[in-house]
Amino acid sequence: MTAPARVAITGAAGNIGYALAFRIAAGDMLGPDQPVILHLLEIPPALGALSGVTMELNDCAFPLLHGIVGTADTGEGFDGVDYALLVGAKPRGKGMERGDLIADNGKIFGPQGKAINDNASPDIRVLVVGNPANTNCLIAASSAPKLDRRQFTAMTRLDHNRAISQLAEKTSAHSTEIARMTIWGNHSATQYPDISNCTIEGAAAADRVDDGWYRETFIPKVQKRGAEIIGARGASSAASAASAAIDHVRTWVHGTPDGDWTSMGVAADGGYGIEEGIVFSRPVTCADGDYTVVPDLDISDFSRERMNATEAELREERAAVEDLL
Amino acid sequence: MTAPARVAITGAAGNIGYALAFRIAAGDMLGPDQPVILHLLEIPPALGALSGVTMELNDCAFPLLHGIVGTADTGEGFDGVDYALLVGAKPRGKGMERGDLIADNGKIFGPQGKAINDNASPDIRVLVVGNPANTNCLIAASSAPKLDRRQFTAMTRLDHNRAISQLAEKTSAHSTEIARMTIWGNHSATQYPDISNCTIEGAAAADRVDDGWYRETFIPKVQKRGAEIIGARGASSAASAASAAIDHVRTWVHGTPDGDWTSMGVAADGGYGIEEGIVFSRPVTCADGDYTVVPDLDISDFSRERMNATEAELREERAAVEDLL
Repeated sequence: MTAPARVAITGAAGNIGYALAFRIAAGDMLGPDQPVILHLLEIPPALGALSGVTMELNDCAFPLLHGIVGTADTGEGFDGVDYALLVGAKPRGKGMERGDLIADNGKIFGPQGKAINDNASPDIRVLVVGNPANTNCLIAASSAPKLDRRQFTAMTRLDHNRAISQLAEKTSAHSTEIARMTIWGNHSATQYPDISNCTIEGAAAADRVDDGWYRETFIPKVQKRGAEIIGARGASSAASAASAAIDHVRTWVHGTPDGDWTSMGVAADGGYGIEEGIVFSRPVTCADGDYTVVPDLDISDFSRERMNATEAELREERAAVEDLL
Repeated sequence: MTAPARVAITGAAGNIGYALAFRIAAGDMLGPDQPVILHLLEIPPALGALSGVTMELNDCAFPLLHGIVGTADTGEGFDGVDYALLVGAKPRGKGMERGDLIADNGKIFGPQGKAINDNASPDIRVLVVGNPANTNCLIAASSAPKLDRRQFTAMTRLDHNRAISQLAEKTSAHSTEIARMTIWGNHSATQYPDISNCTIEGAAAADRVDDGWYRETFIPKVQKRGAEIIGARGASSAASAASAAIDHVRTWVHGTPDGDWTSMGVAADGGYGIEEGIVFSRPVTCADGDYTVVPDLDISDFSRERMNATEAELREERAAVEDLL
């Protein structure tokens, strides 16, 4: 038997965690031949609910599930972990300033980064889902000096998938016919969903839609899709966020298809003129369990302006947590 | 491309429906090569929430998902459907008599059975999940005269999986090492989880546990597991129920492994001395998309007594809906 992979989920009794754990145990993330041991982390008040999630996971008799660790202790929670999905975060309270939100989350993701540094597998791959995801990822990576920054990524795959879905609907294409979608920047309303390199069945997507629709409808729709879901469901995106997290890790591990790429929030390395160090979503190809930023794309003036706006927001977020880095 | 299969889910915006839809779209039920079109049914007050579920499903850009029908109209909802998972049911209200609950659900499952009869694929397979599942299944099947009763089944796979999980935990085995678990009777607290034919790595399970534990701990634990989950989570089993529904259909379509069987609520045919016509969970093998009740098992006096108790409950339930059959 293949040795089980240890997969940690924080906020595991929350709505996204609940949608994630069962799909990972079913093999959707790491494949049908990879046994898993789930490490489910929660804050102490949620340990009762977490025990219910653990019971339900056991009740599924998943062939691939070889154990469950349920804990509020980050040392135990990240011990020997190969993949960490950092989902739990402090949500924005009523009247809360954005700066305070970022600082409060820093107090969660800093210690988690340190616990990962001290306890996890040296080859761990980390995906930050909890918002503000990019800056939480920056904080976690900064708190893990033994690890490479490339091991820490932030999720923009949900935005990427939403953008594909919107373009597919508009052009009556199937999502599988669309390639080279790109999300640049922050997982927030400043993100820039860019179709300038996008293809539909191999032909340029930009030729299939008019510029007005792209700028006035498509971009804001993707940027604000989270709020639209809340309006309809009365609850925030859970299953689609979980699905995107599964896609992100599966692609990272198993690779992007030939001729296509995906979007991941990764530490900027100076490429595309993006300030070094901030976690900025960019187009990447994945192979052999690693990612490579797609090089040498032409950036139009329109794109540059949008990239600058989301970069400015990420710089501000970083400034708000400077003392934690 | 393989033609998409049409899969209907009733109560699709509820907690079980929400856990089901994404896993089916991901290929967990019908396999990685079978495209699907989801037919999501809800009652009119839940159509707003259902539109949010539809948005989230689209936002996943699932390669296998080839369309979504969202509706409160059962004719449209079951039109051309190949698989129907009847999840939505009226829950027991405060102070409600059991007979009233059964009668109220009859008013849901009768018309659904008729709509399936009139609109679905003639080869449709139906799984009833909504409680009281066995009797709801009986009502639906009775309302579909064009179809074979064998096309209507009730879910006891959650009980089956729970029983395997409990036995695995007690004997430090993995769930995959346990075979030939049986759930007899009703999906209710009278169900009889029977380990007398069960094996663990090929050896008799009954030799690995003592009779007192089996009778006093195991049986009631499996029977009352639903209440235990509610106590811990503050919400009823959703993801594990969805997972069992996926297992039930997948096994029905793709078959049971050699030497093993599963449990399904199916129309009694007089075998094992069970009253003909009621929907009674029994051990079945599946092959070529059909099921066969496992014949000729020895039934001990203890087992007979337990089977009689759950049979008596199902006869009473049937009596309460006699006018609907």
